[in-house]
Amino acid sequence: MPGNIFGNLFKLTTFGESHGVAIGGVVDGCPAGVEIDLDAIQKELDRRKPGQSAIVTQRKEPDTVEFYSGIFEGKTTGTPIGFAIHNTNQKSRDYSHIKDSYRPSHADFVYDKKYGFRDYRGGGRSSARETASRVVAGAIAKQFLKDIKINAFVSQVGDMKLGKKYTELDLSLTESNPVRCPDLEMASKMEAYIKAIKKEGDTIGGIITCVAQNVPVGLGEPVFDKLHAELGKAMLSINAVKGFEYGSGFEGVKMKGSAHNDKFNSDGSTITNYSGGIQGGISNGMDIYFNTAFKPVATIIQPYETIDKKGNKVQTQGKGRHDPCVVPRAVPIVEAMTALVLADFKLLGRTSKL
Amino acid sequence: MPGNIFGNLFKLTTFGESHGVAIGGVVDGCPAGVEIDLDAIQKELDRRKPGQSAIVTQRKEPDTVEFYSGIFEGKTTGTPIGFAIHNTNQKSRDYSHIKDSYRPSHADFVYDKKYGFRDYRGGGRSSARETASRVVAGAIAKQFLKDIKINAFVSQVGDMKLGKKYTELDLSLTESNPVRCPDLEMASKMEAYIKAIKKEGDTIGGIITCVAQNVPVGLGEPVFDKLHAELGKAMLSINAVKGFEYGSGFEGVKMKGSAHNDKFNSDGSTITNYSGGIQGGISNGMDIYFNTAFKPVATIIQPYETIDKKGNKVQTQGKGRHDPCVVPRAVPIVEAMTALVLADFKLLGRTSKL
Amino acid sequence: MPGNIFGNLFKLTTFGESHGVAIGGVVDGCPAGVEIDLDAIQKELDRRKPGQSAIVTQRKEPDTVEFYSGIFEGKTTGTPIGFAIHNTNQKSRDYSHIKDSYRPSHADFVYDKKYGFRDYRGGGRSSARETASRVVAGAIAKQFLKDIKINAFVSQVGDMKLGKKYTELDLSLTESNPVRCPDLEMASKMEAYIKAIKKEGDTIGGIITCVAQNVPVGLGEPVFDKLHAELGKAMLSINAVKGFEYGSGFEGVKMKGSAHNDKFNSDGSTITNYSGGIQGGISNGMDIYFNTAFKPVATIIQPYETIDKKGNKVQTQGKGRHDPCVVPRAVPIVEAMTALVLADFKLLGRTSKL
Amino acid sequence: MPGNIFGNLFKLTTFGESHGVAIGGVVDGCPAGVEIDLDAIQKELDRRKPGQSAIVTQRKEPDTVEFYSGIFEGKTTGTPIGFAIHNTNQKSRDYSHIKDSYRPSHADFVYDKKYGFRDYRGGGRSSARETASRVVAGAIAKQFLKDIKINAFVSQVGDMKLGKKYTELDLSLTESNPVRCPDLEMASKMEAYIKAIKKEGDTIGGIITCVAQNVPVGLGEPVFDKLHAELGKAMLSINAVKGFEYGSGFEGVKMKGSAHNDKFNSDGSTITNYSGGIQGGISNGMDIYFNTAFKPVATIIQPYETIDKKGNKVQTQGKGRHDPCVVPRAVPIVEAMTALVLADFKLLGRTSKL
Repeated sequence: MPGNIFGNLFKLTTFGESHGVAIGGVVDGCPAGVEIDLDAIQKELDRRKPGQSAIVTQRKEPDTVEFYSGIFEGKTTGTPIGFAIHNTNQKSRDYSHIKDSYRPSHADFVYDKKYGFRDYRGGGRSSARETASRVVAGAIAKQFLKDIKINAFVSQVGDMKLGKKYTELDLSLTESNPVRCPDLEMASKMEAYIKAIKKEGDTIGGIITCVAQNVPVGLGEPVFDKLHAELGKAMLSINAVKGFEYGSGFEGVKMKGSAHNDKFNSDGSTITNYSGGIQGGISNGMDIYFNTAFKPVATIIQPYETIDKKGNKVQTQGKGRHDPCVVPRAVPIVEAMTALVLADFKLLGRTSKL
Repeated sequence: MPGNIFGNLFKLTTFGESHGVAIGGVVDGCPAGVEIDLDAIQKELDRRKPGQSAIVTQRKEPDTVEFYSGIFEGKTTGTPIGFAIHNTNQKSRDYSHIKDSYRPSHADFVYDKKYGFRDYRGGGRSSARETASRVVAGAIAKQFLKDIKINAFVSQVGDMKLGKKYTELDLSLTESNPVRCPDLEMASKMEAYIKAIKKEGDTIGGIITCVAQNVPVGLGEPVFDKLHAELGKAMLSINAVKGFEYGSGFEGVKMKGSAHNDKFNSDGSTITNYSGGIQGGISNGMDIYFNTAFKPVATIIQPYETIDKKGNKVQTQGKGRHDPCVVPRAVPIVEAMTALVLADFKLLGRTSKL
Repeated sequence: MPGNIFGNLFKLTTFGESHGVAIGGVVDGCPAGVEIDLDAIQKELDRRKPGQSAIVTQRKEPDTVEFYSGIFEGKTTGTPIGFAIHNTNQKSRDYSHIKDSYRPSHADFVYDKKYGFRDYRGGGRSSARETASRVVAGAIAKQFLKDIKINAFVSQVGDMKLGKKYTELDLSLTESNPVRCPDLEMASKMEAYIKAIKKEGDTIGGIITCVAQNVPVGLGEPVFDKLHAELGKAMLSINAVKGFEYGSGFEGVKMKGSAHNDKFNSDGSTITNYSGGIQGGISNGMDIYFNTAFKPVATIIQPYETIDKKGNKVQTQGKGRHDPCVVPRAVPIVEAMTALVLADFKLLGRTSKL
Repeated sequence: MPGNIFGNLFKLTTFGESHGVAIGGVVDGCPAGVEIDLDAIQKELDRRKPGQSAIVTQRKEPDTVEFYSGIFEGKTTGTPIGFAIHNTNQKSRDYSHIKDSYRPSHADFVYDKKYGFRDYRGGGRSSARETASRVVAGAIAKQFLKDIKINAFVSQVGDMKLGKKYTELDLSLTESNPVRCPDLEMASKMEAYIKAIKKEGDTIGGIITCVAQNVPVGLGEPVFDKLHAELGKAMLSINAVKGFEYGSGFEGVKMKGSAHNDKFNSDGSTITNYSGGIQGGISNGMDIYFNTAFKPVATIIQPYETIDKKGNKVQTQGKGRHDPCVVPRAVPIVEAMTALVLADFKLLGRTSKL
């Protein structure tokens, strides 16, 4: 299966199934000399890990990352950074409801058709557990990016939508609540709503907004590898994502060009920023901001009817400890993927001029 | 500048500036033995070409494609297919309003910063003229895909939104009107609206919906290269695109999992299709559908203020013959990029199993 | 540092330094359904490991591979196969003779210049220890290739050259002696010679011949990715390799075309095989055979003069347990890289025709 | 057919068959701001073109390159450089001896097996005509490399071997004779020999030595993409090449480590250069030198027996105007591929350090 490598120069390869021995990855292409703060990496992982609050899955996984190579005397050596997170929660459970039948809106059916069989334990490779490796790599990328600040936050849960723009919010409040919404009033409403959804054994979708600031002019490669095209791909590669928009996004289609065009200040900055910090696929120095839409998690703790491998209807029941809403834990994943894209383009950008 | 190559196995490399000698490309990886209908390729190009109706740019370019290699006795040989479209409209015009100043929401400013200088004639490489090469390659991909049907159409112009779903429409009507909207009543309203916008010298955005049918189960590679992630990247790489969503998209975030999950029929098809034909990044045999949002074209035929290279404010005036709304001509581009993505995954899919 | 990924579809990423925590890798792209014999993999590693005979380094490393993912119920799942070999021999030794000075004909100097600093312990990433990961991946590739037989053997040590062609040898004897030369008389001479060289604290070069049989017609991609071009790159990427030739090789330049051309039998096979099983970069079904030349190992156990980081001359002394001749242990590495190349082209070959 | 793209960052895509409409290519990744001397490019093409002397094929092809994009006001813009060379010599000839039968040691047989059919005219894509595109791209790469000097020359024809090392030769004499051998006495002997071979309707092989000087320390990526591994692949991708060796090469296997190791001078240069300017896959600032072995051209102007598509024996006769020895015309191709490899690593080298 191709598709486990992300990036051109700052490359991440990931491996691992939900209930295999370990998940992990290799970062290839990180330049030599980047000072690595291992605690900061683990901290990012902790933002993503299960069991961190009452509104996320109550599974217990410490998600401790071990580094195998590429870091020496506190700095990257320029050689590949291999790492692994051992799965501690891989005891044999009861998978009979998954093994021979297909959960609706999961990848069970398509994996069986594509590969002939599948590692059914906890969703195998299709589980969002894989994203822990992305968070590790993204945390390294953040340390390489240094002055570029990347902040993601939850801006919508179900139809509860944050009215304010990111410029009107204090993004330092994002981590102050389990929803990861920087508007505290809205955060507590969202939290209550997610709890109610959880009680029903149901799930709900949401939107994460991400802002990248201090991005220098010139990142991104025109034509196919536009900065926003790679950001879009990065976001859409995260489990449960259904949509991506940047700058004016879907709302922008309603505007006239005369209103949508971002007029220049003398210093090359723009007065408005409908462009979302990107023109022609290249960063223009303004804030880059975008929205990523997540569907409701497919695993619901309710009885449901589905089919088995032979096409027979079967009655089954969702089990286990699952997230009623994925967006709070997906915030560090969105940031990680953003960091990977920017790190890659930062390196590519060095090749633009003579 | 990297980024001019699209695809892993069915690869398109493009070259060419708006007002250079020629644009063109190379398709590498198309298997041998595909029967090529050259007229069908030219026909796709004609759907994209300027001057085809009153609501698109009135520039005259025949956009005739010449093939240089890779096709022999009516079939692909398996060797790279080189092609070019000579620019016939490259006479020296007056570019003084572009040469030394930066048009708002164009790529002029970022190209100058990234590359040190730029081919300013007609936008150079950042012009949507480059997409003609994509249409050629996409038309070849369509012939390779054969039974897979790809239909795109305009579903929104400004805030005029088609109320109906694609399943309620007769998609064969798309080409019957200059807007390329299969709802004829809506089409004529949109056409009138675009004409009014044009009269103002202004522009307006829009949305294109695309549907791919008869896609076999199993296309797409999980994790980073999910089918919808590559479709998203493909769409976001088209000039003026600001957003992408598939299946339930941004609206899906408001749904509960119990409603959003697509229940199976006995044959593996699903009753609903909120998944948009893709689960876990892999096609499941249902229709794939997605929306692509286009901003209003940045070139307006109005006076405006901007800055020159030195940061001085300058008064200028948009000139030339431009599209008041890009979506009618972008329909074949959306289809072409969809075909390229599917062709690539069709080839990759051959490597999944022993 | 790019360059840690090998292959297009059957992809190996490796990581790890000689004296870091672990070395390892990820195989991405191995199709689902390949039955995996874990013992066979470990056996290949054992063919490469230190301490296996009196003529190789006496270091003790068990080189036990652990698999983390991608194998389920004895078969590949199509997902990436992550693995690691923990370094058990990484105790802090005396590296003072390496840390601040540059060993002649090692990579110390260039690493310092390229990366600014280096993990000097045991050569870090430039150590041939990295090749253990290749052997693991190659053993998986061999299991995917199944009927294709790959046999490498030592055909030259110093100026002791095997007079016979591979067709005149019983390749099953290769593993019967520590040199890995299938001519037992020559093998014992080579063994005595290597022991004498070792006694001097010196080293000697050698040549490995490799034969791939039962390769189907059609593997290899013309133009840049010719089968022999990838084989050549694969071999030249192995530590200490200085040359590669296939078929008639360097001797072939002396022949006339009328003698060199391989005439066809009626079944498409050829009477002679100066082509080495490859025509125009594509396998023709005949045996593929090639030679790979290894220089004498740079580490000698003798006193020598060199320079330190500041360019001062320093007297030092080679230490540790090193190979007097690299070819006996390199035989499984040559086979592994051959298997990786063939596995990649086997997958690519599936995309040639409609 | 994959394999028509060379390089990671400085990328060349080529297309075209021997007797199609045109051959050509796209250089993607050349940085902006390189001053382009178009005459110098055409001059390189002229060094490769047919009919330039009595010892090469007498075909007449002007091989005039047209540039389509990527160069503006005399400099590269950073956008892809598209170019084509129209085939003027593609009139319908008599191909009956090729169309339905397989020439020995040509790619006819394997193309038919791999692709199902082939463009048989003049060898189609397998013809060395394709290398003209490489020469164009290599000439651009040379202009980007600027101070790096690349000189190839013929060092062996048949068993006539230049006794002297490149350091003992005046490389400026290479172009003074049709053989492209800088030793004039040897050159005239080689010339006479090739003429005699030609009279017989036969062909002969040869060796080209290439030297790259002023290469900065640090080019090349360790592990799989070692500088010499990529050079080896580049050379082996040229038609008719059977072997590659660099530095001490195949002779080096006979040396002891104590003699082979290159001792340092205080400035980091080395006294000897058995390493061939590369250590651990990375340039060390010394001269890079290597040999490339070419087999005798397969097309001989003699009657011969072969098989047709059905396996029947047929008597046929080589026709046309062919090279009796390929090395004189291959000198600029070797230089071009060397330039492409170095240009790619020059760009990659920018990403090594923070």
